[in-house]
Amino acid sequence: MKITLADGNGGKETAALIDKYFMKYFGNDILARAEDAAALYIGGPKRIALTTDSFVVDPLFFKGGDIGRLCVCGTVNDLLMAGAQPKFLTAAFIIEQGFDSDDLERVSDSISRAAKEAGVKIAAGDTKVVEARAKPGLFINTSGVGVCAGRPVSAGGARPGDAVIVSGSLGDHHACILSARMGIENDIATDAAPLGGLVKALRDAAVPIRAMRDITRGGLATVLNEIARASRCQISINEKDLPVSPAVKGLCGILGLDPLYMGNEGKLAVFVPEKKANTALAALKTAKYGKNAAIIGRVDEIQSPDCGGAVVMRTEIGGRRLVDSLSGEGLPRIC
Amino acid sequence: MKITLADGNGGKETAALIDKYFMKYFGNDILARAEDAAALYIGGPKRIALTTDSFVVDPLFFKGGDIGRLCVCGTVNDLLMAGAQPKFLTAAFIIEQGFDSDDLERVSDSISRAAKEAGVKIAAGDTKVVEARAKPGLFINTSGVGVCAGRPVSAGGARPGDAVIVSGSLGDHHACILSARMGIENDIATDAAPLGGLVKALRDAAVPIRAMRDITRGGLATVLNEIARASRCQISINEKDLPVSPAVKGLCGILGLDPLYMGNEGKLAVFVPEKKANTALAALKTAKYGKNAAIIGRVDEIQSPDCGGAVVMRTEIGGRRLVDSLSGEGLPRIC
Repeated sequence: MKITLADGNGGKETAALIDKYFMKYFGNDILARAEDAAALYIGGPKRIALTTDSFVVDPLFFKGGDIGRLCVCGTVNDLLMAGAQPKFLTAAFIIEQGFDSDDLERVSDSISRAAKEAGVKIAAGDTKVVEARAKPGLFINTSGVGVCAGRPVSAGGARPGDAVIVSGSLGDHHACILSARMGIENDIATDAAPLGGLVKALRDAAVPIRAMRDITRGGLATVLNEIARASRCQISINEKDLPVSPAVKGLCGILGLDPLYMGNEGKLAVFVPEKKANTALAALKTAKYGKNAAIIGRVDEIQSPDCGGAVVMRTEIGGRRLVDSLSGEGLPRIC
Repeated sequence: MKITLADGNGGKETAALIDKYFMKYFGNDILARAEDAAALYIGGPKRIALTTDSFVVDPLFFKGGDIGRLCVCGTVNDLLMAGAQPKFLTAAFIIEQGFDSDDLERVSDSISRAAKEAGVKIAAGDTKVVEARAKPGLFINTSGVGVCAGRPVSAGGARPGDAVIVSGSLGDHHACILSARMGIENDIATDAAPLGGLVKALRDAAVPIRAMRDITRGGLATVLNEIARASRCQISINEKDLPVSPAVKGLCGILGLDPLYMGNEGKLAVFVPEKKANTALAALKTAKYGKNAAIIGRVDEIQSPDCGGAVVMRTEIGGRRLVDSLSGEGLPRIC
């Protein structure tokens, strides 16, 4: 079998590939949890969180950001979603021969600024140069270490009655990259951002976080399915409550895309107890990167029929539609 | 300026690129130490060690190993060299579209075996698929976390009088990859191996480790220069004492290559107090992967003239030659 671009979509195909080729060989109790970051005991009372991500976005520079800001935000956010305080990142560069050093400098500057904003230090690095494709590009892997404080946050903690909140508009980063790839002129910028402020706002407001994920490859649909499966629950969301910017809505209309499947790089979905929903919403709205937060649904009291988890959406015209994870490709690489 | 393959050689050009484009922007006290793995306080008495490496070797499969064994060994060895006990690895795959899934399976199996041998768990992963070059390939990034026990080992700890020991024959991995790339038929296999047994043997024999590095890109010459610079000392080595297998020596003779600049993936250079040299040598020889260990030189009593560090080799014909770090490329990517 030949690996296809769809195998890297971050949705169903990627999950199948991971099961078949990775879990089978080096799977273990830690990887089986399938969290964005692993919480690890290293001998002592403290746990650390560990995560890794390679960034292969094309183009490298786009409205509002670049691969440098993206790699820091993506990795920091994975640590935050595990309930950890991000501390250290590694940065490993695979540079294609002929790549312009001015561009490398721009990316480094961007990494530096994003790391400062997120409060992390780059603690280790690696540099490799390889033969180029058509146009010399760059890949960056960032791995991150954080310190877990308090109870770990997992995708499996959602409970019946919990409110589902997203921290802002869906699909921005994806729409930005897509526009750049297709040469469409518009004002859609990436939303790449470190989400530490949002998490801190929830904690400061004493909101119990039942489950939390950042919304990246595969979009909100994929994130909710992951949480539904891990928590063995049915999640209902309302189409009319989903925050989508007019520009992204317009682009999706023209191209026939669904914002539910379009990734962000600076948004999260969080599950909180129903009676804390409004407190949580208010807290998120006061934080940087949270002003368009919205309550979009809840965890149903009934269990999913097969206990395997399901996501159902009440559409704007009143129908009900089963929302599956992303399947297939057809979209550009966004991270 | 355009980035060239030489910028990724692991020698002088890579060091210059790191200074100019990375340290300038996100340099800090941790990165300034330029160790193979960073020792980090994470709040508590324990320090952790953190390292990252991307593997871009071509071909992916070669005599005695493959990119999977290589990535585990390389990362584990960087942790060991910092005096840490390797615990967890991340594994991030960048797969080119069209890559054969059977090959992916072989690599995963190999990662699994090497991880078992080295006593580490894969704790986090990532999968991306990108458009292919001529022939679909694979890059792997592995980052590693270890727990530091006792005093950290640094490149800066060598002192006058210390003996310089290498754990076995030089250049094997490099010669293996070079042979595969050039289609030369021979029996040279990679020496890729986790070096935990060697480090344990030294510790069990109560040998103080003054400085230690694994010998990878840039070869022994580059490693010794790094230690000479960090320790501000002059290191003298004897050409006649350098262990090189007959097959590698033969290949080097034909191609005009110098084993001093050829990388291994399962050898280390260690600096120990002079009076412990024979104890250390005996300990290494009893360990797996250490039977060809040899004392190859010492740290001179005199300081390097400019205090910047220097490596001098007494040649087989009795001359003295200054040994510089690797400069330029001309050799294939070996890791």
